[in-house]
Amino acid sequence: MSTPKIPVGVSGRHLHVSREHLDVLFGEGYQLHPIKDLSQPGQFACQEIVDIVGPKGSFKNVRILGPERKKTQIEVALTDAIKLGINPPVRDSGDIAASPGVTIVGPKGSVNLEEGVIAAKRHIHMTPADAQTFGVKDKDIVKVRLGGERGLIFDEVLIRVNDQFSLEMHIDTDEGNAAMAKTGGQVEIIA
Amino acid sequence: MSTPKIPVGVSGRHLHVSREHLDVLFGEGYQLHPIKDLSQPGQFACQEIVDIVGPKGSFKNVRILGPERKKTQIEVALTDAIKLGINPPVRDSGDIAASPGVTIVGPKGSVNLEEGVIAAKRHIHMTPADAQTFGVKDKDIVKVRLGGERGLIFDEVLIRVNDQFSLEMHIDTDEGNAAMAKTGGQVEIIA
Repeated sequence: MSTPKIPVGVSGRHLHVSREHLDVLFGEGYQLHPIKDLSQPGQFACQEIVDIVGPKGSFKNVRILGPERKKTQIEVALTDAIKLGINPPVRDSGDIAASPGVTIVGPKGSVNLEEGVIAAKRHIHMTPADAQTFGVKDKDIVKVRLGGERGLIFDEVLIRVNDQFSLEMHIDTDEGNAAMAKTGGQVEIIA
Repeated sequence: MSTPKIPVGVSGRHLHVSREHLDVLFGEGYQLHPIKDLSQPGQFACQEIVDIVGPKGSFKNVRILGPERKKTQIEVALTDAIKLGINPPVRDSGDIAASPGVTIVGPKGSVNLEEGVIAAKRHIHMTPADAQTFGVKDKDIVKVRLGGERGLIFDEVLIRVNDQFSLEMHIDTDEGNAAMAKTGGQVEIIA
């Protein structure tokens, strides 16, 4: 029996916002407008976009992903970080302590974020049943092969297990472009 | 005896220009002004910079690397290509047939390049003596490990052997950022 393949999702820069910051950026009590469900259950892309301004450069029209979170978090590729002029750590989602900030500009106001910008650590979402299939457990670190003309083996890939997850490997645009990976491509765990 | 390490060079977007295009961009008979020797003997960064304009976006201040070449060639990361709105092939330097073009804007004129934009195929420059040390030959394809917090194993790495070369692995900014590699870091051939 061959090893089952895992679909890949390449994440562009995006942000998750807190209730408090949504009030400032879009107005008191503003509600996000979902426009597309993401592969992970309950997660969605929103109609709402903002500008992100760093000490050296900025990006317009960065999309908010919902739902609201406890803390605002911005995920960028390191190529983006160089343009912004910041040096974010490579972290798991939610782990933003002592990360750099930027200014977020919305239609109704702006937020000078103290911390919250990270480069997402490459990871695989899976259910407990998937984990059993692959012989791994939550928080394991594995190697993953992505084949093709610009093939790569990703080391240091974090396994995240939750019965609400859908099987998918998440990488950022630098990692996707380095491997010529596209969302919908497939990878395999090799160790 | 452990395997010798190979220094890494991360190449940002840049271009090589032909005599004909240098005449148009900077004026008839214009000579490039070297400002810094590169690691490969005879290659140098120039004072001269140009703008690169694609169908969707542009980059200002892209540096020319000398000396002049027979054909103008622009090397970009795929992240850059997406911003420009073009889809360059991953190729060895010099192999530009049927690659996309862009507009190059210099201080004296502009060139509508028909073809010439590539994403450089990851490669290692070495001398015949180095090749003997590593047990490889010109045009071999090897695997290379780059360790650390965002460790990667690059597959499909081209070996280029010439007695004028200096030992170095060249990757682009997407590949460098995907691995958190910096110029001056080190890699090892593992297969």
